[in-house]
Amino acid sequence: MSKRKLIVQKYGGTSVQSPERIKAVAQRIKSYVTDGFSVVVVVSAMGKTTDQLIDLADSISKSPSKREMDMLLSTGEQVTIALLAMALHEIEVDAISYTGSQIKVLTDGNFSDAKISKISTEKIERSIDDGKVVIVAGFQGIDEDENITTLGRGGSDTSAVALAAVLKSEECEIYTDVDGVYTADPRIVSEAKKLTTISYDEMLELARLGAGVLHSRSVEFAKKYGVRLHVKSSFSYEKGTILMSTEEMMEKFIVSGITAKNDEAKVTIRDIPDRPGISAKLFSDLGQSKIYVNMIVQSTGRDKLASISFTVKKNDVKKTLTICESLKNEFGASAIESKEDITILSAVGVGMLSSYGVAGKMFKILSDHQINIEMISTSEIGISCVIDSIYAELAAKILHKEFIGS
Amino acid sequence: MSKRKLIVQKYGGTSVQSPERIKAVAQRIKSYVTDGFSVVVVVSAMGKTTDQLIDLADSISKSPSKREMDMLLSTGEQVTIALLAMALHEIEVDAISYTGSQIKVLTDGNFSDAKISKISTEKIERSIDDGKVVIVAGFQGIDEDENITTLGRGGSDTSAVALAAVLKSEECEIYTDVDGVYTADPRIVSEAKKLTTISYDEMLELARLGAGVLHSRSVEFAKKYGVRLHVKSSFSYEKGTILMSTEEMMEKFIVSGITAKNDEAKVTIRDIPDRPGISAKLFSDLGQSKIYVNMIVQSTGRDKLASISFTVKKNDVKKTLTICESLKNEFGASAIESKEDITILSAVGVGMLSSYGVAGKMFKILSDHQINIEMISTSEIGISCVIDSIYAELAAKILHKEFIGS
Repeated sequence: MSKRKLIVQKYGGTSVQSPERIKAVAQRIKSYVTDGFSVVVVVSAMGKTTDQLIDLADSISKSPSKREMDMLLSTGEQVTIALLAMALHEIEVDAISYTGSQIKVLTDGNFSDAKISKISTEKIERSIDDGKVVIVAGFQGIDEDENITTLGRGGSDTSAVALAAVLKSEECEIYTDVDGVYTADPRIVSEAKKLTTISYDEMLELARLGAGVLHSRSVEFAKKYGVRLHVKSSFSYEKGTILMSTEEMMEKFIVSGITAKNDEAKVTIRDIPDRPGISAKLFSDLGQSKIYVNMIVQSTGRDKLASISFTVKKNDVKKTLTICESLKNEFGASAIESKEDITILSAVGVGMLSSYGVAGKMFKILSDHQINIEMISTSEIGISCVIDSIYAELAAKILHKEFIGS
Repeated sequence: MSKRKLIVQKYGGTSVQSPERIKAVAQRIKSYVTDGFSVVVVVSAMGKTTDQLIDLADSISKSPSKREMDMLLSTGEQVTIALLAMALHEIEVDAISYTGSQIKVLTDGNFSDAKISKISTEKIERSIDDGKVVIVAGFQGIDEDENITTLGRGGSDTSAVALAAVLKSEECEIYTDVDGVYTADPRIVSEAKKLTTISYDEMLELARLGAGVLHSRSVEFAKKYGVRLHVKSSFSYEKGTILMSTEEMMEKFIVSGITAKNDEAKVTIRDIPDRPGISAKLFSDLGQSKIYVNMIVQSTGRDKLASISFTVKKNDVKKTLTICESLKNEFGASAIESKEDITILSAVGVGMLSSYGVAGKMFKILSDHQINIEMISTSEIGISCVIDSIYAELAAKILHKEFIGS
């Protein structure tokens, strides 16, 4: 291996959406080469390419074979790696592109959602030693029988993190269309600040709350292999946000982010006898119908009758209600209700681990503003409240002001 | 291997240019499966895909690396194989797609114009035994280091012929947008007839004369391995034209085709001393500048002074004249002339091998119509005359009438 410092960079779809953007990415890579780095680059498909390929498949089959879908979609990244190599050659940077197959990104055979089991570093290291920038197609691998597989949502991020891990790169830069992780959505909370650092766990919590820039799988991978992820924008040269372990973090905010998630609805089943097996039956039926349940709250009321409330994606509400209705008699429930105008408001922060009273403070702030809390759930590093979505913006702003400041 | 009869089919770009066309191709394949065939299908990229990819590359680099160009272009066929597999699944035909890399189409490392050296049949035969239609990406292979290579012009035809050869298929069907090989261009000669059969050599001669439906490389390959090629249209269910060896042909026409080629120009160098080495120098200089020379005629005139006339592609005329001018003094030539309004009129037929007087008859027909012949060249199975292009249509019609009939 070369003695130069190795960096892995990943550029997402918007960062390579046009020939002009690809040329800009090439210039950025060149600046790293000039600064003495060996660079391994992972790229996604250009802009809307994947969507266009999905549309093509859709015009032929409503339920295409997953193997053939992976065969189809993997071409998107292959186009980008070739074009980026050409763009680098054009500015006199030696570079070579590789598909997932060529560098043997070995995965299981779970088409469309495969897991990486092994990556061969031989070809990459040889090319680095030859002084080349190595460009790798993200999102793709091969199974043991050399069938092409794809890694599912956030797959190119996972490819980049996995490469950084096997190549023992000190840092993995994830270039995207935002310039880092913010304390809140800047479109809602104008005082939102970019975080310099964030822990893997906080990032996972943010991803679960729909506010993550990265897909949770790549973050879990980075956490597992201790890869420092640096999320930054390919449209500027500013520093972004660095993901690291809680232990590494110099400064721990009690609350590092406020999120407001609007794509879920609340479903409540009222007055069911408090006996074992009811929740199990309900949530296993929902799971079998591939309905993702996020928050779950069960409360026991009078006469040993309980109510269960939970949140599901808004477009799963209809399916969910059908399932609940079919169980209503079996459960002896009195009513099934749903509400779509809700927001899941959350405060996330590793500091909560060692700090008391965050939940109490959050409830007080909300109640001081006459905002009713309909559901509460807590994790080690986060507190979520379901509120009426009419208060979403107001609540996010006041929580940000009180916990993070302006 | 399965006991069913094996057929290899190749579908070109226009045959798979849209989802609708791909579905039509799937239906055609299904009819062969129903008739008891095992089918191996080779496909090209959809319609204009390759051109679009070339444009993309061009917007990034005017002289892209050939390795990266092959990486880029090979995605076109990969898209088609996946979509065709989906279309077959949709009509309940079991099918599986393979890239050139997956079935190990081994080539030399000559990017953009690689030659196939070996194809592994293991995976294909296993899939055939499993009752699957096997869909293979044409035009592509890999070199010994697993770099993706492409086979150059007519590459998918070559892939299909090579597969038919290694799989010992009795016939290889080449589906295209014309329904066979004609005795002349039907747009010019309305009496032109579709040939039932044609020999490899005649087809090669036609390809050289710009009238071939197939690229000469695939025809040479088919000749070498004795693969029967059946050229037919994917837009109809009619029989096309079958290519076979001269020996196999039941009926040998003296002249099986009349062609008129309009894309070349004539260059003449006048009055050069008739001494050795002059032609060698001229044509090696042209060759080094990658100028393709087609017909060459040298005549010795008075005082031992010779003239050399030859034809080149019209868009190479300027480059050719520059080279000739630079040699003029060295050669002691009196003049260099060029003429672009020419047509190369040819009669092609294996029957000429055993028939006398074809040339004489051709010259007489032309002279009877006051058409001046500016250059003549003959091969074993063809005679070509350069005439003024103003007479091209007339000459093609009368030759067709006299040699082939209406």
